[in-house]
Amino acid sequence: MNKNRLLQKEECVIRNSFWNRYIDLVKNMVIPYQWDILNDRRKDAEPSHAIDNLRIAGGKMKGHFYGQVFQDSDVYKWLEAVGNILMLERNPELEEKADSVIDLIAEAQEEDGYLDTYFSIEEPDKKWTNVLECHELYCAGHFIESAVSYYRATGKEKILQIAYKLADYLDRVFGPEEGKLHGYPGHQEIEIALLKLYDLSGNEKYLNLAGYFINTRGTNHFFEEEFEKRDHVSFWEKARTPEPNRYYNQYPYNYYNQFQSPVRLQKKAVGHAVRAVYMYTAMADLAGKTGDKELFAACRTIWDNIVKKQMYITGGIGATNSGEAFTNDYDLPNDTNYSETCASIGLIFFAQKMLMSETDSVYGDVMEQALYNTVLGGMNYEGNRFFYVNPLESVPEVCRDNTQRHHVKPERQKWFACACCPPNIARLIGGLWDYIYTASEDRVNVHLYIAGDGKIQVGESILNITQSTSYPENGKINFTVQSDSDREIGLAFRIPGWAEHYTLRLDGKEITPDQVENGYALISRCWTKSAHIELEFDMQPRFICANRRIHYDLGRAAIMRGPLVYCLEEADNGKYLAELTVDTDAGLTEEKKPELGGYVALKARGSRTQVPDTDKLYTTYCASRESTELVAVPYYLWNNRGTGEMQVWIKTGL
Amino acid sequence: MNKNRLLQKEECVIRNSFWNRYIDLVKNMVIPYQWDILNDRRKDAEPSHAIDNLRIAGGKMKGHFYGQVFQDSDVYKWLEAVGNILMLERNPELEEKADSVIDLIAEAQEEDGYLDTYFSIEEPDKKWTNVLECHELYCAGHFIESAVSYYRATGKEKILQIAYKLADYLDRVFGPEEGKLHGYPGHQEIEIALLKLYDLSGNEKYLNLAGYFINTRGTNHFFEEEFEKRDHVSFWEKARTPEPNRYYNQYPYNYYNQFQSPVRLQKKAVGHAVRAVYMYTAMADLAGKTGDKELFAACRTIWDNIVKKQMYITGGIGATNSGEAFTNDYDLPNDTNYSETCASIGLIFFAQKMLMSETDSVYGDVMEQALYNTVLGGMNYEGNRFFYVNPLESVPEVCRDNTQRHHVKPERQKWFACACCPPNIARLIGGLWDYIYTASEDRVNVHLYIAGDGKIQVGESILNITQSTSYPENGKINFTVQSDSDREIGLAFRIPGWAEHYTLRLDGKEITPDQVENGYALISRCWTKSAHIELEFDMQPRFICANRRIHYDLGRAAIMRGPLVYCLEEADNGKYLAELTVDTDAGLTEEKKPELGGYVALKARGSRTQVPDTDKLYTTYCASRESTELVAVPYYLWNNRGTGEMQVWIKTGL
Repeated sequence: MNKNRLLQKEECVIRNSFWNRYIDLVKNMVIPYQWDILNDRRKDAEPSHAIDNLRIAGGKMKGHFYGQVFQDSDVYKWLEAVGNILMLERNPELEEKADSVIDLIAEAQEEDGYLDTYFSIEEPDKKWTNVLECHELYCAGHFIESAVSYYRATGKEKILQIAYKLADYLDRVFGPEEGKLHGYPGHQEIEIALLKLYDLSGNEKYLNLAGYFINTRGTNHFFEEEFEKRDHVSFWEKARTPEPNRYYNQYPYNYYNQFQSPVRLQKKAVGHAVRAVYMYTAMADLAGKTGDKELFAACRTIWDNIVKKQMYITGGIGATNSGEAFTNDYDLPNDTNYSETCASIGLIFFAQKMLMSETDSVYGDVMEQALYNTVLGGMNYEGNRFFYVNPLESVPEVCRDNTQRHHVKPERQKWFACACCPPNIARLIGGLWDYIYTASEDRVNVHLYIAGDGKIQVGESILNITQSTSYPENGKINFTVQSDSDREIGLAFRIPGWAEHYTLRLDGKEITPDQVENGYALISRCWTKSAHIELEFDMQPRFICANRRIHYDLGRAAIMRGPLVYCLEEADNGKYLAELTVDTDAGLTEEKKPELGGYVALKARGSRTQVPDTDKLYTTYCASRESTELVAVPYYLWNNRGTGEMQVWIKTGL
Repeated sequence: MNKNRLLQKEECVIRNSFWNRYIDLVKNMVIPYQWDILNDRRKDAEPSHAIDNLRIAGGKMKGHFYGQVFQDSDVYKWLEAVGNILMLERNPELEEKADSVIDLIAEAQEEDGYLDTYFSIEEPDKKWTNVLECHELYCAGHFIESAVSYYRATGKEKILQIAYKLADYLDRVFGPEEGKLHGYPGHQEIEIALLKLYDLSGNEKYLNLAGYFINTRGTNHFFEEEFEKRDHVSFWEKARTPEPNRYYNQYPYNYYNQFQSPVRLQKKAVGHAVRAVYMYTAMADLAGKTGDKELFAACRTIWDNIVKKQMYITGGIGATNSGEAFTNDYDLPNDTNYSETCASIGLIFFAQKMLMSETDSVYGDVMEQALYNTVLGGMNYEGNRFFYVNPLESVPEVCRDNTQRHHVKPERQKWFACACCPPNIARLIGGLWDYIYTASEDRVNVHLYIAGDGKIQVGESILNITQSTSYPENGKINFTVQSDSDREIGLAFRIPGWAEHYTLRLDGKEITPDQVENGYALISRCWTKSAHIELEFDMQPRFICANRRIHYDLGRAAIMRGPLVYCLEEADNGKYLAELTVDTDAGLTEEKKPELGGYVALKARGSRTQVPDTDKLYTTYCASRESTELVAVPYYLWNNRGTGEMQVWIKTGL
């Protein structure tokens, strides 16, 4: 059913100051910083012990495991980010570090292929007794992903051999056959990894095992049975518990873990948001690879549920910190939400896999929305501070004082005890070239507008395509296109959902696309002679309203320009942002700012209603209302100019 | 230091259709309903087993304890409400039930005086091993309070003898002497009770034991030591825990339980709100009785912190469900708050005890504010549904969908597994006569405007005082005053903080008070000849603004009329209340409504900003703005006309 394929690394290079700066941050800041963390060289951060865990498991060091039960995955996420960066440019010094870690992993891997330092060190007789909570498959998945990435970047076989040995071992442990475990992961991730390993190797064993995990989920009572077998002991509580899940999760655990029904019968995004989108990503990938239309239809239903009912305007998902989870349709509070950075990254993964089966601009739109807002907003401009939770409204005192808002940090943090977001940002940004285009036998689809060079295999032909643009600062994108054959090749450009107008010029002349379908404008030509295409989107900033069913946003407006969501910050507008209303009739004006890499600030008319300063809690109403100018900045840049209030949804008024 | 005394029951009778209806509800609905609950006769409610627990402990029945560890207190709270109601009018049928329960309690009491069915039945060897969590002193306190009330109503000695035996036993268990426990309760309550027992008996042993509990709190490491002794086992978790308190409480447990410092050094209300105000009540009472100025000053500091920084406009306290607790100054969210009914009742207790030492209108103001808004709002008009949590904003879908709002119920509930609020409302309303006046040697202070007859001892004289009023429906209160002596007696009327104007007439002539001090207008006269006083407050409805530091209320206004806070309800204003803004310049008009006992509705001008109905989550801003009339109703009546949205703080706009 796959009609589109993702590119090979050779086919696309990003050349874009905006994105290259981020890629450099990942290379020069995030990866080295994380390397120090993994090796416990940062006195100002939580100890990691992750590399030492490998040493201990491999017999190179004495001691105990330390950290989260899924601590290993921090190493693997780092390795995957390294692999992605090395695909852009080899780096002997970095490879030396990575190779040294790979040696440790090889030694930590057991004879039969098992790899998980917690159980190898601490509880070797308890392997696979708590698949629900103990993340063995999650860690295995991250390792396999890192192996695929590192191998693709370097061609070095060693890590791949560890991955094959591990995957083969997993295939002996899990499966439909008698004597194997008829289970599936508590935290989905292995499915994505096995499908990548299948892509690399062509070995159907991995495809089938991924399929087994996906298709068996929710069809049996595996988690109940293993809970009985381990006498109701919870890993997290280290004690018997009435139910087999963590106490903080207010949902039934079969929803929290997405096995409330067989996956192909699921209609709605539920439970832990990262687990959910990792699973949907694998489902979409599997559906495409196997031509499973029913499974793909389930993916589309869930996709629609997310983007039409459960997604923030920033591309954030997961409305509650309780279980880091989805809640219900249209429940999107702005100041108590979760919107984990990793969940938005997973949503981008999901979109990418959907694009392989269906060329529909809704996927690219959401990729762009999540990428330019929540994902970029997850990291500061310097690349050394991170948000785990991405609120749409933040008042520092309120975050500090109110327990329901304690999870919302008013400023980016150095690192986290559960350090999933920074390396996830790193691997996404490092691998961003893979999200720009897809190709089929006779067509190239352009999903993201990111400057760079493409050399894309289209059937038997090669299409050379150069994008140059300073999008999203402006909406003009220039393409130079040339093919090595005289075959007609289609070039389809995503027309973003937000773009009310666009123009398309071919060699200077405005043209109408041959076809506009599912949000893509298609031009089919023979590109033997180099052609110049100019695509221009109307970047007029605009006010946005939310669906009436989102109670939290009633009587409010947000501001967008292109794919960028804007926000008010205390730095520009003073304290007490909730006193401000915006006049949506008075329009928005642009002002180019040089700071923070350059951005377009937007100015609006509005007013501030201010009550007198008093010692009393409540007094007879008395307020001044003054006309004022509001200054909005791109959401992804918030909290780069000191800690202060921030607000996306602004009260409307005159 | 006490300058004022509370009245004896004989001194005051309420005669007021508004309040007599509530008193009748307590008598005819709440007490019989709870009796059925306690006896497990309601199929539609959680089983209580509380009476059976007494039977089992007394050897009248075989079986196990069932319910919360503090289940006994449900029986005692019922008994106290019964006592209060019997003070108003004896009732042989009700007394028969109460006497039968008292017989069971006598049998459940152990030889040495110990009384707590959980430990007597289930863990007799664990008595007093977990004073922090196990509520033995809490239950004892509620029993003693019920005994005082029932004895005062009936003169029957049996219950009082049980109480003395229990209190004498407690005095042998706790105290400064070697061999006694140097502890104090986890959940404060016994202190209030012992002071009441001292009032009744004059026995200083009880005064001293209350003083011991209060003054020892926070001065030693009792809770840590008992935690060590019981090997870190938590009662709630039934397992070893890292810290000696319940998991849901996000505060250090010494704050949660108010022993972060000696009580007289405490400056701020912290932790579990009900425990806090019960403790402050006892502190204020003790300070007054013992003339302890330092302790009283601490009470005043804490009082000011609550009412100037941590109280909702409705008199609700406790901003978070996490630990049912105070959070921090000015942290008063409207839709995720707790504001437990019982906490406001405790705040009224606290105010009453403060009034004994200091005649300041702030206490009566807050009593009135809490009583007419949160306490009355805690019960429906029919008297058979109750709020535990009292939000200032409620959207049923949001309460259902969002985990941070699950504790906020959009409609009153039948009863609760932890059934503290309904009987607490019952005992307060049954004992309301005790809050209207205080008296000193030469003066009577009028704190609440509730119609009825007073026959008040003032020094050697009796002052007969009749109040007639339909306050708070209107602001006119008529008093007829006559004394049996020719001594000059002061009559001081609280001038509510909200009353911008008032007039005072003596025998038809407007007069100026002899003195206005601390919010009380004083007239000193010789009242031998019957005099007629007319007091009238300006009941003009008014908009209110909140202190600028309360971020949640910025750009919003509330509506009050007299002491009543108003709210918008879906029943009058349609769905999507957050679309409404109110025009504070356009004034408020009154409309008398006959329903729900008759109330004054208030109408305001405003507008509704409505976005188009669409399937999309976010669209280019487009909204209609229509002028509209807003209808506000008294907050205490909300949710009596179906389940729907409610909002106290309304956006301001034109």
